[in-house]
Amino acid sequence: MQWAKGLGLGLGAAAFLGLGVIVGHFAIPKGADPPASQDLDLEVLDTVIGQLEAGGIQENLRELAREPHLASSPRDEALVQLLLQRWQDPASGLDEASASTYEVLLSFPSPEQPNLVTVVDPIGEILFFCNQSEKNLTGEQGGPDVVPPYAAYAPPGTSQGLLVYANQGTEEDFMELEAQGIKLNDTIALTRYGGVGRGAKAINAAKHGVVGVLVYTDPADINDGQSLPNETFPHSWRLPPSGVERGSYYEYFGDPLTPYLPATHSSFRLDPDSVSGFPPIPTQPIGFDSAQVLLCNLRGNMAPDTWQGALGCDYRLGPGFRPDGRFGEYSQVNVSVYNRRELRNSSNILGLIRGAVEPDRYVLYGNHRDSWVHGAVDPSSGTAVLLELSRVLGTLLKKGTWRPRRSILFASWGAEEFGLIGSTEFAEEFFRKLQERTVAYINVDIAVFANATLRAQGTPPVQSVIFSSAKQIPAPGPGGLTIYDNWIRYFNRSSSVYGLIPSLGTLGAGSDYAPFLHFLGISSMDIAYTYDRSKTSARIYPTYHTAFDTFGYVDKFVDPGFSSHRAVAQTAGSTLLRLSDSLILPLNVSDYSETLRGFLQAAQHGLGALLEQHGIGLGPLVSAVENFEKAAMALNQRMLALQEGSPDPLQVRMLNDQLMLLERTFLNPRAFPEERYYSHVLWAPRTGSVATFPGLANACSRAKDTAPGSAAWAEVRRQLSIVVAALEGATATLRPVADL
Amino acid sequence: MQWAKGLGLGLGAAAFLGLGVIVGHFAIPKGADPPASQDLDLEVLDTVIGQLEAGGIQENLRELAREPHLASSPRDEALVQLLLQRWQDPASGLDEASASTYEVLLSFPSPEQPNLVTVVDPIGEILFFCNQSEKNLTGEQGGPDVVPPYAAYAPPGTSQGLLVYANQGTEEDFMELEAQGIKLNDTIALTRYGGVGRGAKAINAAKHGVVGVLVYTDPADINDGQSLPNETFPHSWRLPPSGVERGSYYEYFGDPLTPYLPATHSSFRLDPDSVSGFPPIPTQPIGFDSAQVLLCNLRGNMAPDTWQGALGCDYRLGPGFRPDGRFGEYSQVNVSVYNRRELRNSSNILGLIRGAVEPDRYVLYGNHRDSWVHGAVDPSSGTAVLLELSRVLGTLLKKGTWRPRRSILFASWGAEEFGLIGSTEFAEEFFRKLQERTVAYINVDIAVFANATLRAQGTPPVQSVIFSSAKQIPAPGPGGLTIYDNWIRYFNRSSSVYGLIPSLGTLGAGSDYAPFLHFLGISSMDIAYTYDRSKTSARIYPTYHTAFDTFGYVDKFVDPGFSSHRAVAQTAGSTLLRLSDSLILPLNVSDYSETLRGFLQAAQHGLGALLEQHGIGLGPLVSAVENFEKAAMALNQRMLALQEGSPDPLQVRMLNDQLMLLERTFLNPRAFPEERYYSHVLWAPRTGSVATFPGLANACSRAKDTAPGSAAWAEVRRQLSIVVAALEGATATLRPVADL
Repeated sequence: MQWAKGLGLGLGAAAFLGLGVIVGHFAIPKGADPPASQDLDLEVLDTVIGQLEAGGIQENLRELAREPHLASSPRDEALVQLLLQRWQDPASGLDEASASTYEVLLSFPSPEQPNLVTVVDPIGEILFFCNQSEKNLTGEQGGPDVVPPYAAYAPPGTSQGLLVYANQGTEEDFMELEAQGIKLNDTIALTRYGGVGRGAKAINAAKHGVVGVLVYTDPADINDGQSLPNETFPHSWRLPPSGVERGSYYEYFGDPLTPYLPATHSSFRLDPDSVSGFPPIPTQPIGFDSAQVLLCNLRGNMAPDTWQGALGCDYRLGPGFRPDGRFGEYSQVNVSVYNRRELRNSSNILGLIRGAVEPDRYVLYGNHRDSWVHGAVDPSSGTAVLLELSRVLGTLLKKGTWRPRRSILFASWGAEEFGLIGSTEFAEEFFRKLQERTVAYINVDIAVFANATLRAQGTPPVQSVIFSSAKQIPAPGPGGLTIYDNWIRYFNRSSSVYGLIPSLGTLGAGSDYAPFLHFLGISSMDIAYTYDRSKTSARIYPTYHTAFDTFGYVDKFVDPGFSSHRAVAQTAGSTLLRLSDSLILPLNVSDYSETLRGFLQAAQHGLGALLEQHGIGLGPLVSAVENFEKAAMALNQRMLALQEGSPDPLQVRMLNDQLMLLERTFLNPRAFPEERYYSHVLWAPRTGSVATFPGLANACSRAKDTAPGSAAWAEVRRQLSIVVAALEGATATLRPVADL
Repeated sequence: MQWAKGLGLGLGAAAFLGLGVIVGHFAIPKGADPPASQDLDLEVLDTVIGQLEAGGIQENLRELAREPHLASSPRDEALVQLLLQRWQDPASGLDEASASTYEVLLSFPSPEQPNLVTVVDPIGEILFFCNQSEKNLTGEQGGPDVVPPYAAYAPPGTSQGLLVYANQGTEEDFMELEAQGIKLNDTIALTRYGGVGRGAKAINAAKHGVVGVLVYTDPADINDGQSLPNETFPHSWRLPPSGVERGSYYEYFGDPLTPYLPATHSSFRLDPDSVSGFPPIPTQPIGFDSAQVLLCNLRGNMAPDTWQGALGCDYRLGPGFRPDGRFGEYSQVNVSVYNRRELRNSSNILGLIRGAVEPDRYVLYGNHRDSWVHGAVDPSSGTAVLLELSRVLGTLLKKGTWRPRRSILFASWGAEEFGLIGSTEFAEEFFRKLQERTVAYINVDIAVFANATLRAQGTPPVQSVIFSSAKQIPAPGPGGLTIYDNWIRYFNRSSSVYGLIPSLGTLGAGSDYAPFLHFLGISSMDIAYTYDRSKTSARIYPTYHTAFDTFGYVDKFVDPGFSSHRAVAQTAGSTLLRLSDSLILPLNVSDYSETLRGFLQAAQHGLGALLEQHGIGLGPLVSAVENFEKAAMALNQRMLALQEGSPDPLQVRMLNDQLMLLERTFLNPRAFPEERYYSHVLWAPRTGSVATFPGLANACSRAKDTAPGSAAWAEVRRQLSIVVAALEGATATLRPVADL
């Protein structure tokens, strides 16, 4: 199976070119192709950075965000054709591009029966309708292509009961309500976004007998407290009262019916009714205008201070409404959901620049294409950057002035909003090929949240290459700072190795890097421009996943002039080029030493005493970390020796293989059998407060209240051995390749 | 962690040499090292083959088999020193050698309380003692170092009951006994070796209420019917009446307490009492002399014809003894077992020849060192060959006339007899490093079963290189045939691609190749000389796992003159050199096409109708196989084109990576969660008669009697998708490396 299916067209040609590649770049007619660069060419790098234009990104975004392009919608398919056309352009396209389609389970509201949230009195009279759609403030919020607000994968059904306010719908929140003597059985819970994932709110609620869940965005969490129409979009970047955050309420990622298998037409599929991870009860998101009417009429105890918000009233817990309020004490809330789960075709698009020297080494650069509505910020800001970057590189390629040392693979993923589906299916289909050959994955999803500073997340080996890129590029705005110098003003940490440096964030599972990092063990990163946290406490940019996330919104409020978009394109582009063209891979594996040392110290301080009480020593972990540090340092010395000499190609390849494959050595598919796709023993989800090895931390929090000798304590010991074995295994791969 | 621990001595040197390797073989002082050969040097190959001496192997074996060397015994440790000394010899040693120790769970009989099998009458009088040890026929079967016959890992305990004869102790055998109206509760079952694994006999028996198990070797199965003292060893190679096959009765492989983790001192260990895979009831092997006394006195129905043997009486089923026989009808059999499970240190020894050009590519060659008693055939015949081969290569190395292109790693594994423990712990400890870098694993355990013909087993990619070796070497004995031409006379098949060729067997889990193939996905092979099946139907060589497997036995009966040993050394040595020195790896991945086509046809003919009835089509599997065939053929064409040109080193490396890593692409650690270590979707254990994809075949046999829509039928669909995804994934890795 090719990387990409569906467009058979490219195949014959591909096979021919493939032969060309193997027979070598010599075989590619001269003139058509430049002599292969043996190392990063700084002139080319400057050229690329210089040719990336804000205006180009702006025009890309205008087109990409012109219409809503929900996954598998006609406009989504039209964008597939648009990207293919760009990547196949004779003057500025790539070597090859094609689309690949999977058949995946998505979830949509019924076109015939809108989801409905109402307040009804005891005789069934409807006293109040929550808004079923957002107000059409700019002429873009109406029309058939704007999907009404809904909770994707929430089951159809009608629930009715007394309303309670459950804050963020965490397990603790529901326990607090019960502690206050509130019976949750058969109630409807009003929750606000934040604290836990979307799906978790409904799953937690159902555990406590709640029969329906409403979710809204509190102005305190998104608008720095402001909520009036004249304070919000289109008068500012803030969320208007009718704005509703859509989103997937599925707990895992990947196509829900084909875990670990590519969702091809013929693939085995689970029975949808037996799939875990879906919300168990009807769930619907609403705007804070409607939420205010419900919340400000609740009776009962005053909610705790931390539960209060900015809707201009005291938040009470319920159950039910005030007798002296708008609805009367016997009125209930009715939640009617008509969502449907459907198998739909969703496409990834892949665009390739063939490497001249090591075509079998891939640098992946991707973003998703699908949005909830117009998705100007999410994801089109990233796609606009992707297209500008591929245009500049494609133009150099077609001119014959440049071809990378390694292959570059651009990807436009489908159905990310439903749970990283396109990227996960791709990772499942090409598991081994990607694991063996992928140098790194660069993700630029939301390119610009705000225009204050760069924000990068990634695994330790990518820190150095992102820093190199950021030091080379001027930051937008006055002051003449580099992106790096500007970045360090906003996010910094004191490194035991480097002193004060910008702090690279860690990767969760919020975008398409998740399958590459957690399932395939590929060094990954996510790059964006973001907020000045001293100016806003917004959870995320205010119109996130609403119909107000439009081109005008970006053009006027998020990044006027698109200079932050350009800065992201330059940073990501420079990082891409360094990874694809450098003779020696710019992956500093020794930066893992600082992370491991930090995890170790956190384990010693945070868990050491507890473990001690149960006769579990951290000695083996201490030596494992020390062994890693020594081996990484020695590897760096050998690398320097190699760079000083005139290394032969195989010596470089052997070293690069060690650098590329280090991340893989941390995978253990048997470490967390209950955590789907999570195999990376350092970055799996961590419960509990100690920032350390997740398997160990999670096992400790499960064991701490159990008896000595319990199965939970055995699991702590097992997790300790798993991480020690992973570190010692990683160290073995860093040692000289032919040492005993 | 280095490859090898324990002997810190080598480490500093290792690090220095390691640096040397990276800086390149240029850096190694001239004179000390020859210019690196870029391709296989046929002169060197002939030299090696010519210098391998039967006499050297004979003397190795004389020393290795001089004393019993049970795993972790003092003599086993002495042999560790002997091998280290050979591999560290200044004139004929390797670059480096060191030992590495694991702490593993073994099982031994009690030195104080011998296991005892008796016949007792109703008042407790002992009427008969089964022999507790083998007769000391050559002066080698006595003494403290000869471990008495026992069933390793069988639990201690005493059971007593009426005796039944249960043939081979298969599930079907016990069902047959019940069908004949025999109540198995509280009986002792006498079984004979063969049919199923050792442990399975006890596990099956316990399911039917049996409380103790005896196992013996029937002369019909091992001696072609002969059983008299003057017909057997020391008068012939046949098993004498008191001979008892020892063995591990553990159902899995690897250290029982540390599945998937290396058995380091600090590793997490399971509670031994909660480990699965051990025999649940007292079990003891006995000689056919004792078995005859028991079996020929049984009462009850005549056993089926296929259950009859060569003990010179009619085999009856019991329960209990004949009233007119030696014991009387109320006598019972008592089985008293005093085995102990103990944590013991067991060592692997690793010897390295550093590759000159690609030191990070490893060709592994290994055999276990531990035996049950003297173990002249098993395993010392293989170790004697290993030492002769390492001597010849080491001498060339030390002379400075040769250094391989790739690294060669020789291994002497510990505790194989208890369940492939040393090799499995090594595979667990260096999982990623081995997966990334190992070209192939060559196993020579029992080098010579008999001296008629070569017998090789392996995965398809190794067929061609074994054939090349076999065609180059003269077969022992008259006729002037090559090993290949002699081989084809004994084992052959008609290949759709090659016509009549020797048939390469498939690999199960009978020796140390199992963890490398099934857990790591490394192309593996096992090479030996074996029987003329027209002359004997023996299950295996007669003295297998007995105290009669001695140097004299080999020297006199198995391979007088050691010419078959030499033939194995030459074949394995040639294969090793071809894999380590050839510019392009001699792994013919396209030979997998014939295997896949065969599996597919077997699935179509053997399962197609059944699947059809349940609406399961094999279409996706058909195209997956076709896609693989096309990609493999195209790869071969590119390889030829490359060989004709003057390929640059990276082009060769890229192609070799495709060849080396193909086997890996068939691994899916989530395919068979219940089958410990088995991840290879083509070679996992297969129940049922259809020789096809094991996951599919096994799922079908479980599903065939269940209702449509059962979970078992869903598993059939899942297994079909798993194998399709594995084949398509493999195909993707064979395609040109930079094709979309």
